[in-house]
Amino acid sequence: MQFDHVAIPSNDIAKSVEWYVSRFAATVLYQDTSWAFLNVGGQKLALVTPSQHPPHVAICVTEQQLDESAAKIGVVVDKHRDGTKGIYIQDPFGNAIELICYPPGQTLYDKKTS
Amino acid sequence: MQFDHVAIPSNDIAKSVEWYVSRFAATVLYQDTSWAFLNVGGQKLALVTPSQHPPHVAICVTEQQLDESAAKIGVVVDKHRDGTKGIYIQDPFGNAIELICYPPGQTLYDKKTS
Repeated sequence: MQFDHVAIPSNDIAKSVEWYVSRFAATVLYQDTSWAFLNVGGQKLALVTPSQHPPHVAICVTEQQLDESAAKIGVVVDKHRDGTKGIYIQDPFGNAIELICYPPGQTLYDKKTS
Repeated sequence: MQFDHVAIPSNDIAKSVEWYVSRFAATVLYQDTSWAFLNVGGQKLALVTPSQHPPHVAICVTEQQLDESAAKIGVVVDKHRDGTKGIYIQDPFGNAIELICYPPGQTLYDKKTS
């Protein structure tokens, strides 16, 4: 169980990406008009459109751990456009925590992170 | 310039610490009644009282980089109870970004992180 990323809100993904790249020499792992995935100082940071995803932190789990957690709380596992799978849970004060897994060979990042 | 930590809000630090420890086997680096610093899956995660600190992500910089950034935007560098120093800046959508530095030999973490 490893920390995976933090996601913070943006209403203009391109503008935010430009800021993190110029300010912190971030590198872009993925980007479209609704969200982006950056490497900022060695940590993955997602920029998300608030209407689509809540700000959150994400913990990487295995597919088995994800399925067990989803079954335990009775939610369906989401499959994302980048090939990752996940569910959201909440900490005691309502902060969104994503449990995410990267099925081997099925995500956009396999080439970049291998 | 390295990613340092993410800070999320809590109105009961002890309760949140207990949740992260039990749910994700977090380890406690620092804790008092107003904030805590955890290691969650290899990443530092702070729990902060919203009235004292905004939710934020923090980027580790050198003392020189911190002083230069503070001078550039005209703010005073804060010295925290744990010995770290920092300032807050904002990204284009108002997300708080802390520039933080750990002066060697002056923080509570020197023994734990050395």
